[in-house]
Amino acid sequence: VTVDEVGVAMLGYSFMGKAHTRALLALRHLDVPLRPKLVSISGRNAEAVERVRETWGWGAAVTDWREQVADERVGLFDNGGPNAVHVEPTIAAARAGKHVVCEKPLGLTADESHRMWQEAERAGVRHLCGFNYRFVPAVRLARELIEAGELGDVVHFRSRYLQSWGWEADPTLWRFDRAQAGSGALGDLGSHIIDLARYLVGEIRAVSSAVRTIVPGREVDDHFVATVEFENGIVGTLEASRLARGRINSNAFEVNGSKGSLAFDVERLNELEVADTRSFRRVLVTEPYHPFMRYWWPPGHIVGWGDTFTHELGHMLEAIAGEHEVAPHGATFEDGYRCSEVAEAILRSAESGRREEVTYR
Amino acid sequence: VTVDEVGVAMLGYSFMGKAHTRALLALRHLDVPLRPKLVSISGRNAEAVERVRETWGWGAAVTDWREQVADERVGLFDNGGPNAVHVEPTIAAARAGKHVVCEKPLGLTADESHRMWQEAERAGVRHLCGFNYRFVPAVRLARELIEAGELGDVVHFRSRYLQSWGWEADPTLWRFDRAQAGSGALGDLGSHIIDLARYLVGEIRAVSSAVRTIVPGREVDDHFVATVEFENGIVGTLEASRLARGRINSNAFEVNGSKGSLAFDVERLNELEVADTRSFRRVLVTEPYHPFMRYWWPPGHIVGWGDTFTHELGHMLEAIAGEHEVAPHGATFEDGYRCSEVAEAILRSAESGRREEVTYR
Amino acid sequence: VTVDEVGVAMLGYSFMGKAHTRALLALRHLDVPLRPKLVSISGRNAEAVERVRETWGWGAAVTDWREQVADERVGLFDNGGPNAVHVEPTIAAARAGKHVVCEKPLGLTADESHRMWQEAERAGVRHLCGFNYRFVPAVRLARELIEAGELGDVVHFRSRYLQSWGWEADPTLWRFDRAQAGSGALGDLGSHIIDLARYLVGEIRAVSSAVRTIVPGREVDDHFVATVEFENGIVGTLEASRLARGRINSNAFEVNGSKGSLAFDVERLNELEVADTRSFRRVLVTEPYHPFMRYWWPPGHIVGWGDTFTHELGHMLEAIAGEHEVAPHGATFEDGYRCSEVAEAILRSAESGRREEVTYR
Amino acid sequence: VTVDEVGVAMLGYSFMGKAHTRALLALRHLDVPLRPKLVSISGRNAEAVERVRETWGWGAAVTDWREQVADERVGLFDNGGPNAVHVEPTIAAARAGKHVVCEKPLGLTADESHRMWQEAERAGVRHLCGFNYRFVPAVRLARELIEAGELGDVVHFRSRYLQSWGWEADPTLWRFDRAQAGSGALGDLGSHIIDLARYLVGEIRAVSSAVRTIVPGREVDDHFVATVEFENGIVGTLEASRLARGRINSNAFEVNGSKGSLAFDVERLNELEVADTRSFRRVLVTEPYHPFMRYWWPPGHIVGWGDTFTHELGHMLEAIAGEHEVAPHGATFEDGYRCSEVAEAILRSAESGRREEVTYR
Repeated sequence: VTVDEVGVAMLGYSFMGKAHTRALLALRHLDVPLRPKLVSISGRNAEAVERVRETWGWGAAVTDWREQVADERVGLFDNGGPNAVHVEPTIAAARAGKHVVCEKPLGLTADESHRMWQEAERAGVRHLCGFNYRFVPAVRLARELIEAGELGDVVHFRSRYLQSWGWEADPTLWRFDRAQAGSGALGDLGSHIIDLARYLVGEIRAVSSAVRTIVPGREVDDHFVATVEFENGIVGTLEASRLARGRINSNAFEVNGSKGSLAFDVERLNELEVADTRSFRRVLVTEPYHPFMRYWWPPGHIVGWGDTFTHELGHMLEAIAGEHEVAPHGATFEDGYRCSEVAEAILRSAESGRREEVTYR
Repeated sequence: VTVDEVGVAMLGYSFMGKAHTRALLALRHLDVPLRPKLVSISGRNAEAVERVRETWGWGAAVTDWREQVADERVGLFDNGGPNAVHVEPTIAAARAGKHVVCEKPLGLTADESHRMWQEAERAGVRHLCGFNYRFVPAVRLARELIEAGELGDVVHFRSRYLQSWGWEADPTLWRFDRAQAGSGALGDLGSHIIDLARYLVGEIRAVSSAVRTIVPGREVDDHFVATVEFENGIVGTLEASRLARGRINSNAFEVNGSKGSLAFDVERLNELEVADTRSFRRVLVTEPYHPFMRYWWPPGHIVGWGDTFTHELGHMLEAIAGEHEVAPHGATFEDGYRCSEVAEAILRSAESGRREEVTYR
Repeated sequence: VTVDEVGVAMLGYSFMGKAHTRALLALRHLDVPLRPKLVSISGRNAEAVERVRETWGWGAAVTDWREQVADERVGLFDNGGPNAVHVEPTIAAARAGKHVVCEKPLGLTADESHRMWQEAERAGVRHLCGFNYRFVPAVRLARELIEAGELGDVVHFRSRYLQSWGWEADPTLWRFDRAQAGSGALGDLGSHIIDLARYLVGEIRAVSSAVRTIVPGREVDDHFVATVEFENGIVGTLEASRLARGRINSNAFEVNGSKGSLAFDVERLNELEVADTRSFRRVLVTEPYHPFMRYWWPPGHIVGWGDTFTHELGHMLEAIAGEHEVAPHGATFEDGYRCSEVAEAILRSAESGRREEVTYR
Repeated sequence: VTVDEVGVAMLGYSFMGKAHTRALLALRHLDVPLRPKLVSISGRNAEAVERVRETWGWGAAVTDWREQVADERVGLFDNGGPNAVHVEPTIAAARAGKHVVCEKPLGLTADESHRMWQEAERAGVRHLCGFNYRFVPAVRLARELIEAGELGDVVHFRSRYLQSWGWEADPTLWRFDRAQAGSGALGDLGSHIIDLARYLVGEIRAVSSAVRTIVPGREVDDHFVATVEFENGIVGTLEASRLARGRINSNAFEVNGSKGSLAFDVERLNELEVADTRSFRRVLVTEPYHPFMRYWWPPGHIVGWGDTFTHELGHMLEAIAGEHEVAPHGATFEDGYRCSEVAEAILRSAESGRREEVTYR
């Protein structure tokens, strides 16, 4: 079997650059219909990019993403840079006919996100927003159980994403710079749980919230709390914090339905708690019939956080090859945009002290 | 040593009647400054009350609580009846100079609760509202750790009280009758977590909420979600539900502070999770130096839910004997009233779609 | 309904004296066919016994148990004293026609235990050995599930009882005195898990073990390990320690069968982990249809360790009233004796370095 | 920086072949002093090997491992084939001057293992036996904490490795064929926990055991139980089973010392429970200062089971480059041999019914 290749250009060489690159390398040896070829990686610091290029075996290191956009060998543009450099390069790439992946949150504002979505649609390319937690096997299983009616009618959703590094963090980090990051815990952590709420339960209609900056001198929010109402009338809560001592990366949700419940926490990424009526069973999501397990090991041999990117980018390659759409299991730019609208409604509500409708243009 | 006795009259002979009676019997043999004497128990069904009287050894069974209020042998009137019979008998007893205990929620409305508090104050008697979860050793320990500064500045609180019996419940239950119960999950479960939020963190200033009745034909709410803002500016969430499959009696909270965090769940009543910076330790709250353990066993031998009433009523007996005030560790009628105001603000916010200030008269 | 009374005489006023007395008091108000009457309590220290008598309302305090044995009002003799005073008073009471309860381990030696059993049988009285963990609702449920075939054929059992107080314990404690205690962790903790192994799986045929005293100057063992073979050929392990930092009272077992598994830990006394094939469900053993729950609360309101004695002594009262035998759910003196034989085989094996058959005379 | 390469030849293309290949591919991009070059892979089924070669990018597919042993480009021979083909190819490779990695159990017998060790030593090559659980970050951390004295004197060790696939397994699997597998749960699972016991606590002096085959028609053992005594006199237990319903891959141990305890389970591979005196903390072993975390992500982003092979083979590459010895953190063939002797002593003890000394030649 000869497998076609798709040239990939990556923007960003730090945390997300590393996560995506490892996944692309892994996908060269897995059962996907297109084999990724690592054409070039870009970043502002020439020396650092060159070092990363060499380490990971990218074909070229460039300091101007425009070169990547202009490169005919590139079929997929993967934007893993800081939030402030999402909009322009991604739109340029889409206009140049490249399929596009962009990390979350999609734009710095709902307006930016909307433009990114519209441009990608107009260009007719595949687009995926990097909500990688959809690609945790236990999360995909949660979605499948809900869709199969195992929970009956969903009536309640709660979610919180708690970390604690915010207390001692280096104040010069780009994540605390409003211009580069847009927001704090809301955009960074909140966007993940907004997306999971939408993926698992449905569209969000209204929110009521409070947003706080606690650490003196910080430009962005440290944590927020919100109640949400979904389009079907059901209710839930969302919370995120960088100031929750004892929690390292606890992205946790619970879904309650008329026939059952589900509970999950990223800190135990391979487990899904499943209740039918009176009790929860702890399912280790590593069986051959569980999502994505075709890539991996016999039961009980867990996958890691980094492997979610393999699942995600593998999904994108399948979509590019025409095997399926990016939606509903992958987040599209529309999902990225809708998430931005919810985040902005959360900010509006915190200001207004009112339940704010989420409006989509 | 001769220990003085205090005559007790109990209203209500069902769930709470049994819980209180067992505690009173236990307290006859524990180290408290007043020994409770079971003078009389009352209820509307003469036959049922007589059966309970005989079982538990109450001195008399009566069908009119006014007899109890008029009884000179009674020093403490303990109201464990349905919510709708809280206000009148309790006020009458206080006016007659009896110390009063009343189950939660205190009144059917904030107005009733306020009158109960005012009348008890005016009468100069001791008053305690039955928020028994304050008397879980792990909860008292949580309060002590917060007061001792072990958590630093508290910045975030979250709490949810989840049960699941609402799906299949008998529709004729008084708990579903608006006239008798006032509200549903909000008054029954929500009042507990409102009280714990106030006990652990402080006064609540404003709430934003959504309240829902899901099961067709039901008069009262099945669940609610709320964000809260405390007087010191910090934020949190409250949720309660009778429709959370897999949860039986999960009254759980988490407190995050600048130096540490705490987590608790009533389903594991003897455990407190305590984090300093990066991890939680599971503390089994059964050491000799832990709250209330003077009543009990060597370490590791857990107490039960029923024992919290022994702690609570022992605390009341000590207060009657003048050893300490009911507050701050016991909930007074003022606490019961303030809880009612928060509950009403939650209802107002659900209606108005706005953040509602909690106003105290 | 008039309920008959049975006069109880208690030997021992310390840890077990308190636990049994509380249970007897509770049983005066519960649905049992005989109401216990607290006739007398005995102990060597007159002052201390009198104090306990007054606290708990025993009719009399005596310093010579022979008075109790001679007392015609006494129908049940309950021996909760130190191990060295089990054999003589218990046999005397049985010979005097009293029903007998004796704390575990039954005798200091298998020989003593055998005599106690034989004498009680000869006297034709009811006899119960205080293995109270059989009366944990989750443990009874475990037995019921196994009997009902829910686990299929049992093939493997493992159990360990871990505490940590041994490191810093007062060296003058009677538990470290070989003459009074007989053995250390083996008799104190090991006897409990030997009994549970027999209760849940069946008779033990052979053991291989190692027993160690670690803390300098100590006369009795600090911990032991053993493999066991049951009469039906299946295998398992037993371990107990007073030197396991971080464990307070962790009496835990796991049973594996051809169709399912069970796991339990006393530190979470109200929970039973139940596996069918691939995963464990956490069952909160507080449903109305769960063992002993007729005495207690609605689902999710947990019982305490002390309540197991209420179940145990209630069971004994029912047996005295002829409602059922003590066996199989209560441990008889035969069970106490058989446990002693297993314990002695463990000591023999530790000495001989051989698998030792458990021999019953 | 130019990094030298080392040519690798792999024997075996199934479970272990895949696990090792993925790790070798990952190591081409990580900070190790030698970059692995995938020279050739071998197996008996030409078609299958060719398919794997193509998938993973091995340079050549061969059906005779002798070609690999004779290949001058090969510096490291990695044997991940079935147990029966460990001894001959591995010794041949070592004699040819190749460094050798061999999966566990090392030989089918202690004699085979001993020859493998002696031959590798004689050849002067680096040798590593594939006990990959030493390379779980939490396990390495456990060893470091013990070495640093955080637990004080270790006094007790317990370990069990439980799976459940044995009940329904395909009877034609090589793992059930005595000629190919040597033993069942003992060699497959038991060897892992014997190695961890030795790694964490020290040399094993004697064992007492029972070994059982339960499923009809099976040639090898399904489970075993054993007590062990270490050279320093302390005691422990080992158990392994393929018949433990509800357990998927539960390789769990607990270490108790005079100052603290540790507990671990592979099903929660990223967590280590650490007790000082009275309680366990759940440490998420993902901090920058934790073992192997230099390869990975920010705190709280867990690694997977497959990543332990990256750690293991990275360690071997460092040893080949002379940065450190394979021991003590990697298992050498001496460790593989010593493990075989313990396994054989377990079999002898099961037969003899006696405590058997572990003898090393």
